[in-house]
Amino acid sequence: MPEKIFEKIDVVGIGNALVDVLVHTDDAAVAALGLTKGTMQLISQAEMEKLYAHIGPATEMSGGSAANTIAGIASFGGSAAYIGKVANDQLGKVFRHDITAQGITFNTAPHMDNLATGCCIVLVTPDGERTMNTFLGASNALTTADLDAALIGAAQYIYLEGYLFDPPEAKKAFYAAAETAKAGSTKVALTLSDLFCVGRHRDDFQKLITTHVDLLFANEQELCAQYQTDNLDAAIAAARGHCDILAVTCSAAGAIIITPDEIIKVPAEPVARVVDTTGAGDLFAGGFLYGLTQGLPLAECGRLGTVAAAEIISHIGARPQQPLAKLAA
Amino acid sequence: MPEKIFEKIDVVGIGNALVDVLVHTDDAAVAALGLTKGTMQLISQAEMEKLYAHIGPATEMSGGSAANTIAGIASFGGSAAYIGKVANDQLGKVFRHDITAQGITFNTAPHMDNLATGCCIVLVTPDGERTMNTFLGASNALTTADLDAALIGAAQYIYLEGYLFDPPEAKKAFYAAAETAKAGSTKVALTLSDLFCVGRHRDDFQKLITTHVDLLFANEQELCAQYQTDNLDAAIAAARGHCDILAVTCSAAGAIIITPDEIIKVPAEPVARVVDTTGAGDLFAGGFLYGLTQGLPLAECGRLGTVAAAEIISHIGARPQQPLAKLAA
Repeated sequence: MPEKIFEKIDVVGIGNALVDVLVHTDDAAVAALGLTKGTMQLISQAEMEKLYAHIGPATEMSGGSAANTIAGIASFGGSAAYIGKVANDQLGKVFRHDITAQGITFNTAPHMDNLATGCCIVLVTPDGERTMNTFLGASNALTTADLDAALIGAAQYIYLEGYLFDPPEAKKAFYAAAETAKAGSTKVALTLSDLFCVGRHRDDFQKLITTHVDLLFANEQELCAQYQTDNLDAAIAAARGHCDILAVTCSAAGAIIITPDEIIKVPAEPVARVVDTTGAGDLFAGGFLYGLTQGLPLAECGRLGTVAAAEIISHIGARPQQPLAKLAA
Repeated sequence: MPEKIFEKIDVVGIGNALVDVLVHTDDAAVAALGLTKGTMQLISQAEMEKLYAHIGPATEMSGGSAANTIAGIASFGGSAAYIGKVANDQLGKVFRHDITAQGITFNTAPHMDNLATGCCIVLVTPDGERTMNTFLGASNALTTADLDAALIGAAQYIYLEGYLFDPPEAKKAFYAAAETAKAGSTKVALTLSDLFCVGRHRDDFQKLITTHVDLLFANEQELCAQYQTDNLDAAIAAARGHCDILAVTCSAAGAIIITPDEIIKVPAEPVARVVDTTGAGDLFAGGFLYGLTQGLPLAECGRLGTVAAAEIISHIGARPQQPLAKLAA
């Protein structure tokens, strides 16, 4: 059977498909759980169930880092696709509904075996900061067989989350996707995802950055950790030659876009009240990639990133609640 | 085996246990679906699946009218219990988690047969108004056997939602619960729930109000429909003799508390921006019942009702996101 022919696609995201379980809590509770605020830790199913039994009433919403980014691109009006693994259970159907309801191509077959759809228990503190506890579940079952070469080949960019290095088979799929992209004219974007994720995968990330990555997203802490320095300028200088574009997010200070030729500082978009920072980095990447694939100047790509991040941190959850196309205008 | 002895309980709620699926949409979409904005319609599983496939990305949160009320009472610091039927599926577990995480007694055995946990697809329009589409699912399986006489006997009030008249077996349980309450010293509170619900059950509601109901909640439209008049004063006059306390909610105009001896007007609590009115009536009832069971004056009970309603309409979803005890102070 011939591969399906896809229309030109702006971005294909590949990531761990998760449903977020968002709960309001406080700093003392986060500390009592032995967690580092603002980071992500991996937990087993037993740990997830124990934590869930411990937390207060929650809200369930589709999440997953790259999926959030792709949802942002679609909300701006971009054409997007997603590859990731959910189970055929209720939360898997919620994830599938939410992403396809935005017109995003999502053809990955559901996992039909023993794993439940993965989830991320997100502890949101009163300052809006989030601390994430991820049970990978069915997202562990993503393999190279789930990659759609025609889909990847039709895209301007594939977008890979660093978190995908955690499930062993997904890591292989990650490399295969990057190879498939490079074999054609598809560019490769990567996010370092999380401080602890960099700690787990620094050397592998570094190899990939120097050989395959055209566009690298990171926040200040992640970039410094990747280049093992306390100095952001030193980290930027080290990363600068390794990829065409480096986009560094700096929380309330906005973002910095670095190319071999220029450094562009982008101020943060003002927000009345920061409710929940879950998805801020994901949505910055979404706005930036949307702008880039529309051929917009880098400063405008950065502005779209900050517009999307500002929308997402003003409410609970990591998916846009207003059309970003309207906010961008 | 002897029945479990319960500590004194403020309120036991009995209702259709549902998970809300909340989605932002617009007036045109609500009209195109042939729906009457602000009301609730019952839908089959096939209709639910069709509607779900049609709507945009959503947020899942525990709901159910009486369950929202009970969550409000617990958030104020009241002791509360709930009786309602979910399935043993993922959404049923979400419902059970969220209600028990608030310290609410919820011992109803899950439905183990073919019905999925019920859900309510809530279309939220830009004015914050909600239009509800309920698939009863497992809540259809609530029967008299699920009633816990010891629990009901230990409560100051049972709180019954009019929606419970829709599933035939639940209607029998509704009557049995009211009888059990009346056989002891437990008082009976009822909400008329919805304009269309009144249309379906007017005569049965009327019999119950005159024979069993001590405290009646309704909004203006529901009370007028119940007494088949366009005039709120006429409706109030007709209802006044039938129960000890009548609490009528009037949206932005606040509420009116009516007893045989007095009429108390309660202003609405100011809200910066109405995001989603889902649960406003439920939470008014929660605040009011909390005050009443603490022995507070009726005007203060009304104020607590408006405080709870104001919190709930300022965010997506029908469960409090801040401790109401703190807001009440």
